[in-house]
Amino acid sequence: MDRLTIIKVGGKVVEDQEVLNTLLDQFIKFSGNKILVHGGGRTATEIADKLGIKTEMVDGRRITGGEMLDVATMVYAGLINKKIVAGLQARGSNAIGLTGTDLNLITAKKRTVQEIDYGFVGDVTNVNSRELRLLIEENTLPVIAPITHDAKGQLLNTNADTIAAELAAELAGYYNVYLFYCFEKKGVLLDQNDENSVIGELNTELYQQYTEEGIINKGMIPKLDNGFRAKRSGVKEVLVTNTENMVNGRGTRLLI
Amino acid sequence: MDRLTIIKVGGKVVEDQEVLNTLLDQFIKFSGNKILVHGGGRTATEIADKLGIKTEMVDGRRITGGEMLDVATMVYAGLINKKIVAGLQARGSNAIGLTGTDLNLITAKKRTVQEIDYGFVGDVTNVNSRELRLLIEENTLPVIAPITHDAKGQLLNTNADTIAAELAAELAGYYNVYLFYCFEKKGVLLDQNDENSVIGELNTELYQQYTEEGIINKGMIPKLDNGFRAKRSGVKEVLVTNTENMVNGRGTRLLI
Repeated sequence: MDRLTIIKVGGKVVEDQEVLNTLLDQFIKFSGNKILVHGGGRTATEIADKLGIKTEMVDGRRITGGEMLDVATMVYAGLINKKIVAGLQARGSNAIGLTGTDLNLITAKKRTVQEIDYGFVGDVTNVNSRELRLLIEENTLPVIAPITHDAKGQLLNTNADTIAAELAAELAGYYNVYLFYCFEKKGVLLDQNDENSVIGELNTELYQQYTEEGIINKGMIPKLDNGFRAKRSGVKEVLVTNTENMVNGRGTRLLI
Repeated sequence: MDRLTIIKVGGKVVEDQEVLNTLLDQFIKFSGNKILVHGGGRTATEIADKLGIKTEMVDGRRITGGEMLDVATMVYAGLINKKIVAGLQARGSNAIGLTGTDLNLITAKKRTVQEIDYGFVGDVTNVNSRELRLLIEENTLPVIAPITHDAKGQLLNTNADTIAAELAAELAGYYNVYLFYCFEKKGVLLDQNDENSVIGELNTELYQQYTEEGIINKGMIPKLDNGFRAKRSGVKEVLVTNTENMVNGRGTRLLI
């Protein structure tokens, strides 16, 4: 099977033009097939603020009312996605921006209201990679924004870490998938105040221990849960890393 | 050659949910290959207003400063494009949203500053339909937002009528292309106050005469110029029509 590198980038990485340029320069160095999955929550919050729409978060998850969904769609699928695509095209990579709605790539179900009403947040129900794989075989570089749909006409907001994991799990049936979660830190840290305390390898037992001890904090838990799920689904390698270290394969490697 | 229907929709057609639903219901009735090109200027103006960005128009053309380009990218490539794609997917059409930046589909050159500085407005320099044709052959339905790029990383705003004409001209080499300009009126009117004064057929001589006589007004001129250019490039049929009449082939037919 051919190699496929899936990189999920979020936060400052995609929202600061200079950092984004560095990322794209690094990213195109990976040989073989590539997919980029991006977030953009900070810009969404900023634009929502300017439009007078209040941002509500519960445990790091965005409450997505109708107006916020429009903002998420504009910012993720429009502004950020197309800037990245233009940046990759300028570097000679034939990028194509997609959401989970395009080509019916990712179907999701509006999250059931229990204690919290998350609004138009979608939990993934299906990944259809047929046309995506054709695009990959044509040497294009898919750039995926975290918007999905319910196949009945409703757009939904789905966490970008989850999208990366679901795509990786699905594509592991066709490629040797390497999944990189690229964020601001060098990896999962033992000590939040020490940038060099990166945990080199993290297995499920150690993960459970660190979670119980509170060493691994709230924000990292959904990311790592996604990473471990991808790894269990046959993804070759899952690495939590940053822009600088990703090309050298340094960071926190997830093991099962 | 197979038939390919390209429909350009703009104005209220894409910006009122009910009208959009009617359009999509009509649109999927066309047999064979289809492409939808859309605008979205009114929503862009509305969002820009809310963000405190001033809209400036010269002869119906938007002056696109850096902030307005961001708004155009958000609204055209994000909000409107993805709503249309979700609506088509719900109707069983495998839609895929694209801009001219994706797959390097449409390259443009930032308009040279002469009397007026249009800002980040792009004049089309090249259409690369290779991957688009592969997508059409896979029975997907491309939905195109009027954003292009200069291949050096700069996004540009290009008129949607022009995009439809350029795509039609390029694809006329591979398909029997039928191009529909779908807007609020039933066609090109002889009398702006009489909705039923539709000119059934318009050739270049008559067009010149009506323009000189002021019967055909300013807003229609760039649209018709685009239509005639497409027709001259080998497009089988160019029809200016509205949502209701398009399926019956009624409206103003351009002849050369």
